[in-house]
Amino acid sequence: MTYCVGALLDDGIVLASDSRTNAGVDYISTFCKMVMFEVPGERVLVLMSAGNLATTQSVVALIGERLDDESDDFSIYNAASMFNAAEIVGNALREVIARDGEHVRANKGDPSASFILAGQIKGRPLRLFQIYSAGNFIEATPETPFLQIGETKYGKPILDRTVQHDMSLKRAAKSVLVSFDSTMRSNLSVGPPIDMLIYRKDSLALDNHVQIGENDPYLLDLRKRYGDGIVAAFDAVPEPDWAP
Amino acid sequence: MTYCVGALLDDGIVLASDSRTNAGVDYISTFCKMVMFEVPGERVLVLMSAGNLATTQSVVALIGERLDDESDDFSIYNAASMFNAAEIVGNALREVIARDGEHVRANKGDPSASFILAGQIKGRPLRLFQIYSAGNFIEATPETPFLQIGETKYGKPILDRTVQHDMSLKRAAKSVLVSFDSTMRSNLSVGPPIDMLIYRKDSLALDNHVQIGENDPYLLDLRKRYGDGIVAAFDAVPEPDWAP
Repeated sequence: MTYCVGALLDDGIVLASDSRTNAGVDYISTFCKMVMFEVPGERVLVLMSAGNLATTQSVVALIGERLDDESDDFSIYNAASMFNAAEIVGNALREVIARDGEHVRANKGDPSASFILAGQIKGRPLRLFQIYSAGNFIEATPETPFLQIGETKYGKPILDRTVQHDMSLKRAAKSVLVSFDSTMRSNLSVGPPIDMLIYRKDSLALDNHVQIGENDPYLLDLRKRYGDGIVAAFDAVPEPDWAP
Repeated sequence: MTYCVGALLDDGIVLASDSRTNAGVDYISTFCKMVMFEVPGERVLVLMSAGNLATTQSVVALIGERLDDESDDFSIYNAASMFNAAEIVGNALREVIARDGEHVRANKGDPSASFILAGQIKGRPLRLFQIYSAGNFIEATPETPFLQIGETKYGKPILDRTVQHDMSLKRAAKSVLVSFDSTMRSNLSVGPPIDMLIYRKDSLALDNHVQIGENDPYLLDLRKRYGDGIVAAFDAVPEPDWAP
């Protein structure tokens, strides 16, 4: 299983993905689920993936092979807009599922996959998309500033409570990490290291990428403080007087 | 969607279910998903259900019609043990799915359903089971004291953090209500009123049943205090110094 989150903020974008991949109980490994494409000073794009690993790797490979394609229908480096880039990712996903889907299903597998695409092209707005397995997509807005793929539910309540488009990048990074911590606690198949990328609007450079391991001191401190805080919040609620 | 929780404690059992049923976007109604069977002083059984409403209603109807059956293979009133009662529920579920399943699937529906069964027979231990759609089942233990069916993920983190078999019934009721509050916040198709039943071990009477509506003062107070506490816990975690 996988968990990826993207948050679109006034000051930039915070992206995070876990690294655990399991293809059966006795085969758990780590793969980077965050791929970065960068033409410094001109455009930056980041793609995160969830779902069937063969599908997502094929999609990323196709996109990589077509970076130099002159047509803006195939190359995200030539795409005129982030919307156009999201179409390219959706079309590559459709192409891979059209090729592999029936064979995977014939083996009782599930070929589906989804992506989060974030980025900015010089002089244009910062955008964040979620691409469904059908190849269609939705976009984050100030009212709905975060998008999730993979094992999304355990970590959604804290994002609902804390993420707002006008929060700082630091605070959003904290919010995303608390969301990961809740998810990893409830689902062992989501695991560290966590890849986190923080992009400052208009910087057009992907220079804030950290990998947060299992024993990262900040993650351990966050887990302890937030866990204690949750229990304190729970203790502070009076018990129901109608209960025996 | 539905959400039901059962917690098995040293002092008794806490059970709760929501009342929202949706069979399509424009058809949302409330149904009681908690059914009680009681022979005062001799046995008490409570059944909560999630999944296809036609399936769960048929199962409950079959069980009700067979209460007077003299065979302990069909009547939960004659079942020798709670384990035996769980088998009766599982078998009734298999019978309904065998009858209706292929027809529902032919209409692109999903006939599956699941149950939580809790209860006690005089002189025997208190037990709590979760019955899967296949008719097989698992049982709660002191190490795994709570079971959930339906929309389980949003409300699981707080149960993981707070539920222990040796907690008081009052505190467990609070924990279950916080879990419902998190679920209702993240999934609008889970909604009040919440049916809550608290059973004291060896009382052999179902006399602590409350229905908690949308504007219940205790629920509103819990939501406010716990929500404020979460944000305070979040604020108390320092922001990462490596973030820009």
